Parts: sequence; C-alpha cells; structure tokens
Amino acid sequence: MSLARLSARAPKSVNKEKTKKELERLKVKIGELQNILFAEGKHAILVVIQGMDASGKDGAVKNVFDAVNPAGCHVISYKKPTDLEMKHDFLWRIHQNAPPKGMIHIFNRSHYEDVLIQRVHKWIDEKTVFERFEQINNFEKTLIQNGTVVLKFMLHVSKDEQLTRLKERISDPTKNWKYNEGDITEREFWNDYMKAYDDVFKYCSKAAEWTIVPTDQNWYKEYIISKKIYDTLKSLKLEFPKLPPKTK
Amino acid sequence: MSLARLSARAPKSVNKEKTKKELERLKVKIGELQNILFAEGKHAILVVIQGMDASGKDGAVKNVFDAVNPAGCHVISYKKPTDLEMKHDFLWRIHQNAPPKGMIHIFNRSHYEDVLIQRVHKWIDEKTVFERFEQINNFEKTLIQNGTVVLKFMLHVSKDEQLTRLKERISDPTKNWKYNEGDITEREFWNDYMKAYDDVFKYCSKAAEWTIVPTDQNWYKEYIISKKIYDTLKSLKLEFPKLPPKTK
Repeated sequence: MSLARLSARAPKSVNKEKTKKELERLKVKIGELQNILFAEGKHAILVVIQGMDASGKDGAVKNVFDAVNPAGCHVISYKKPTDLEMKHDFLWRIHQNAPPKGMIHIFNRSHYEDVLIQRVHKWIDEKTVFERFEQINNFEKTLIQNGTVVLKFMLHVSKDEQLTRLKERISDPTKNWKYNEGDITEREFWNDYMKAYDDVFKYCSKAAEWTIVPTDQNWYKEYIISKKIYDTLKSLKLEFPKLPPKTK
Repeated sequence: MSLARLSARAPKSVNKEKTKKELERLKVKIGELQNILFAEGKHAILVVIQGMDASGKDGAVKNVFDAVNPAGCHVISYKKPTDLEMKHDFLWRIHQNAPPKGMIHIFNRSHYEDVLIQRVHKWIDEKTVFERFEQINNFEKTLIQNGTVVLKFMLHVSKDEQLTRLKERISDPTKNWKYNEGDITEREFWNDYMKAYDDVFKYCSKAAEWTIVPTDQNWYKEYIISKKIYDTLKSLKLEFPKLPPKTK
C-alpha cells in the first residue's frame, strides 16, 4: 500500500449533509457508551492519532469526543521527550499513559513518532527502526491481551491542503498560536514521511490495525473516526453493573 | 532443571573465610564502578531479586549494595498491587520503575510474582500464565535493546532453612516486624512454588538468563550475587566522560 497514492478526500458518492447529521448522532452515542464503559470498568480504550502537521489531529480530538465526559477520557499530547524520558526506552513514557480499565486515553501523536520523525531525520539507524517495530507490536499485544482495545488512526492530508492550512496559521489570528516555522521546513521531507508511514502500516499492523482517514475535509475525517469508535464500543457489549441481589 | 533437587548450600570446596574476604573486595569494586556508570550515563542496570519468603532478599540488597552511592541506586519493593495498578496490565507498574541510563534499579520481588503467587493460587488461568511469559520476554528484550542490562537472581533457600528463619521472626525481637502469619500458610504451597519457578526458568530465560543462588548461607549468597554484578559492570568497559578539548 502506498499512502502517497491514496486520495485524501471523501469518495464522491458520500453525501456531506447526511454524513454530518450522522456524525452528530454518533458523537452522542459515543458519549452514552463511554458512560457505561466507565461504570463497567472491564475494558480500556486507547486511541492513537497520528498525522502530518496540520492534518487536523487537535480538531479530531475535539470534535469526535466533545460529547464524552472528560472524567472518563484523558488526552495525552506527546511533544519532544524530556531529558528523563530520553534516558529510558522510548516506550517508557507511552506505557505510563496506558489507560486503566474504564477509561479512554487518546494519544495525540504517539510512540509512532519514534519510527517516523526519528527515522526521517536519521536520528536512529535502520537496525533500531526495525527493532522498534517489533517492540511496538509486542507492546500493543501486551496491552490488548490485558484488556485494552487499541485503535490507531492516521489522518491522511494532501500536501496541497496542508499548505493551505499552514498559511491559515499566518493569516488567521485565532490560528497564529499554532504557527511554527519548523512546520514549513519539515514539509521538505514529505516524501520521506510518506515512505516511513507506508512501513509503519506494513510492519506495525500485527497487533492492532490502522485506519487511514482521508482528512482534507474535516467533516469526513470526524465521521470516519466516530464511526470506528462507535462500532468498537458497540461490539464490546458494555453493560452497567447490577446491584448485588441483597441490596434490592 | 528442577529447583527442588538443587542444593541450597555452597559447594564443600568453597572456603568460607576466603569467600567473605573476596565479598568485601567485590562490594568496594561495585561501589567504584557504579560511580563511573552514573557519570558515563550510557547503560542502565536492572537487578531482579526473587525468592521464597525468608530467602534473604532484603539482606541481599543491603549487603551487596552497601558500598554503592544511594543517589545512583534505587530499590523498589513490590507489594500487593494497588487498585490503580490492578486496572492496568501487570507490567505497567514495572515499566514505570525501569532504570534510566546511569542508574541501578533493584527490584525486590518483581513482575515474576505475576506468574508465581498468582499461578500457585490459581488467580489466573494457564492461558494467561503463558501469555505473561511471552509478555515478560518481550518486555525484557525491549529494555535490553534500549541499553539496560537485566540481571535476574533467584535466591534458593531450602524448606528447612526457611522454617528456621521464620521461627527466628518470632523468637528474635529485632525480627518480629517481619513476622507475617501468611508466610506459614504459604509454606504449604512449597512444591507448587518450586514447579512454578521451574517454568519461569524454562520459559523466561530468553531475553535475560537467571542466576540461581544457593542461599542457606548468607555469605555465599552475597558472594555469588556480588560476583555476577561485578563481572557484569566490568564487562561494560565503563569510562568517565572526558572534558571537551577546549576546556583544558
């Protein structure tokens, strides 16, 4: 599979208005199911969101989960590792943030940066890259075998749409705070990133599969993620715990 | 290999006085090497200490590492998991305590309890036991590939010597604080523990091997552990970092 050849837009057959309506319905349902997930305390949900700069990761978190009780949902945004984090294996900070049963944890960027940005800039050698692929698969398998559902989303934006959005960060005062000169220079590595993502899909789908989300249109992106999360929660057959018989 | 058939005493050829002298020498050497380990900051050392009740785990920690700077050495004693720990995979609390580069971390009991006491008492089924063996191997491999040396010691005490030591906890006021009624009932599971340990050695030596330490005599126990730790530190060819040329 080659990411570079995949469309970043919704298929033409998709009706925008109907989809947006369905998105609203799904969001409410996700909120309802999260409440039962929390009460039941049997499963944990880990949502991993990856994507190029300006692919709309922050917006996805906000717009998919805004009907969810924040007490049961924790967002972790991974930045440059701290000195202490650098002195540990790259999964150390990740594992700390694994969700306990009953909770949804959302990773905005994740352990995949350790085989993406680090690989593209050659901060690590290829031997290390492949060791990390295996370490990631094993780590995700451990989480899954211990009761966590792992959902991974790659927000696939086109290079043109990315440029439009980065320019908006300059022209729109409400978006200025997101402007970062580095994003422009990072754009020069676009093709290397696409190749690195292709390898992530190839080598790191063993424990938990990826959903590649066409994301040039935010409404479609949010719909696809919501649908996947709703379907997953639904499949868990969550139930409110019952009172012990005596109490009645 | 069957633990039940292994002697818990030093071989007769071993000279006690000479060995104790050598132990003192090794302890000082370990202290010196730990200082370089810390300064260099390239490797981390994880020491796992397992053993039956009264096998002398606390004493081993104290007497092997008392020449080491506590700033570079951290002991983590694992007790019954907390509620929050129980809501995560069993390696969650373990991974948090993995040593950063430059440090020695000592686990007094460890993730192996999750395939020992939990298995012996049938708190987990056999499918889970074997899943955990694999998860442990993968976890240790991840640590090792990321710069940690993992040393695992099983303190092998005989059933008779254990009884003597447990009785001392009643008769000796300085040891009363260690007395726990549960240790006596736990003794009834001795054979099950021996079998569970045999499986640990069989299935969890893939990433890092075990050292089985005859431990009925404390001096011999401490010597064997010190020797292994000294040899390991020595093999790392640790060096103090040099000043950059300009500074001279």
